[in-house]
Amino acid sequence: MLIKDGTIALDSLPSVTAYASAAGKMESEGPLGKCFDFTTQDNTLGEVSWEKSESKLQQIAFNTALSKGRFSQKDIDVMFAGDLLNQCVSSSGGAKDTEIPFVGLFGACSTMAESLALASIFVDSKAANNAAAVTSSHFCSAERQFRFPVNYGGQRTPTAQWTATAAGCAIVSSHCKPPYIRSVTIGKINDMGVTDANNMGAAMAAAAYDTISRHLANTAQQVSDFDLILTGDLGQVGSDMLKELFKRDGVDISAVHNDCGLMLYDREKQDVHAGGSGCGCSASVLCGCILKQIEQGTLKNMLFAATGALMSPTINQQGESIPGISHAVQLSAQ
Amino acid sequence: MLIKDGTIALDSLPSVTAYASAAGKMESEGPLGKCFDFTTQDNTLGEVSWEKSESKLQQIAFNTALSKGRFSQKDIDVMFAGDLLNQCVSSSGGAKDTEIPFVGLFGACSTMAESLALASIFVDSKAANNAAAVTSSHFCSAERQFRFPVNYGGQRTPTAQWTATAAGCAIVSSHCKPPYIRSVTIGKINDMGVTDANNMGAAMAAAAYDTISRHLANTAQQVSDFDLILTGDLGQVGSDMLKELFKRDGVDISAVHNDCGLMLYDREKQDVHAGGSGCGCSASVLCGCILKQIEQGTLKNMLFAATGALMSPTINQQGESIPGISHAVQLSAQ
Repeated sequence: MLIKDGTIALDSLPSVTAYASAAGKMESEGPLGKCFDFTTQDNTLGEVSWEKSESKLQQIAFNTALSKGRFSQKDIDVMFAGDLLNQCVSSSGGAKDTEIPFVGLFGACSTMAESLALASIFVDSKAANNAAAVTSSHFCSAERQFRFPVNYGGQRTPTAQWTATAAGCAIVSSHCKPPYIRSVTIGKINDMGVTDANNMGAAMAAAAYDTISRHLANTAQQVSDFDLILTGDLGQVGSDMLKELFKRDGVDISAVHNDCGLMLYDREKQDVHAGGSGCGCSASVLCGCILKQIEQGTLKNMLFAATGALMSPTINQQGESIPGISHAVQLSAQ
Repeated sequence: MLIKDGTIALDSLPSVTAYASAAGKMESEGPLGKCFDFTTQDNTLGEVSWEKSESKLQQIAFNTALSKGRFSQKDIDVMFAGDLLNQCVSSSGGAKDTEIPFVGLFGACSTMAESLALASIFVDSKAANNAAAVTSSHFCSAERQFRFPVNYGGQRTPTAQWTATAAGCAIVSSHCKPPYIRSVTIGKINDMGVTDANNMGAAMAAAAYDTISRHLANTAQQVSDFDLILTGDLGQVGSDMLKELFKRDGVDISAVHNDCGLMLYDREKQDVHAGGSGCGCSASVLCGCILKQIEQGTLKNMLFAATGALMSPTINQQGESIPGISHAVQLSAQ
């Protein structure tokens, strides 16, 4: 039920009954490498195009989640999926061999939270018994599309982030077991006027601030009620801006804040500059390690605020700014 | 509540309480020209890029729907929007000056039905009191992106369709007045192996057949229960294929079938080849003339099955096929 201003309480407390993650070579070598259900040393995954490799990552995450939850494909009433590619082809390519009703989304790197929010609302309203949320990104398909051909070897700026080669899938059901999904906040589009495609953290920080602030206000909670407020992929630049924006309200989130883009790689050893990004970044961190910690009770109450830069090379080349969006999902152990 | 296999009954019967359409020059000269709330003779709409012109069409459709329904922006709890452009920039550009919670979708030309279905489910489940569904397409932004630069003046094939310069917006609320939204069926991805970007009707026909068939079976209705089964933009080629697919089941839908792509233009006088297409095609036909006929009781019970070709130049150039999808929304006067 709508509380107000984009925040929706899930009165029946749907559960994430299964989840899985898949990640590429560089992600497997990072600090979360051992958390993923599947890793590969060959980022082509045996496919002839990067688009197909990314579709395969989604399929692996989805099929692994199915088998971990002892589901078959016909148990899934609806799939919410999206990705960064033009016309979301890795999602449609990943799902086209299934017979599952499919809702295509575009929320840039916020898609894991967007899909999880919609899956939760469908299950809460009994429009679905089991709903899957799936998303992915792939370094090679994304960099070629958004910036430069990968083998061009261009110099990356200090604010640039590394698009994760990864996917995640969460299946939401009406069962009664943790992780529970308590509420969601739908993001608003925020435009900070950033025009640099190599500084997405800055483009997304205000959106994250807006969504997290609204979620706290609308649910009458405080930062101290959470043991983790996890943003999607603000990276170092965006995370610093987010903390600064909260500081202006007299709120210090640093004790509970973390960012998937800062967790996925070891920035001392891996050359990712400001951190990770891509739909697969927050998807793999959530489905690879966070949901397990909630299930085990290590995390009691957390807010997952994935962040997306609604960037397009077309309008970027026209000199337009990059608006940001952030959707949030509150998950708890009880 | 889920009936089965992607079909969801909207038990509270949400209503379309306001709707509006906006269309370009060529659409204003077609048979439905007088139905649209707004038409322009200048398809730039005074903007410096086609992407911005398309955003403006969405804004006009949305703002006109608001004013027709005597809504203000703050009455709208959530907006569902999408379009054909890479990273759905005309939707994010259209909404970025609002403060409305925003759910970005990608369903290609099926987006009007996808957004209307999600808006209905949100209102039915009380996740929103008023939810907007908005979509658009623009000939000049789409043709440049998907096929050739417009001023290249390439020869078009007989199966090619004309991307509509148009937008539509429907606002769904819990009020009790027609048009009522009775049920929706979420589409599945169907791949017929079509690789020709100039034959989208063929790519989408099987998806429309699958969704309409499932909707009829899952709701225990027959073709004769409807006074209109309206597909999105199959055009002449796809409409003929759809009728043929039903004929194989011994079902004749020709008495009640029509297609937005065949309604929007006068194919005798306007050089659109197989018909119209684009998210704005079905959006403007639905919001320009169909919803009014349901409101007035001229149409009693209709199925709106918008169709999308999940086409991407990237994978098209790689030789991959174009999968189709179709989402359906059943609207009635009572």
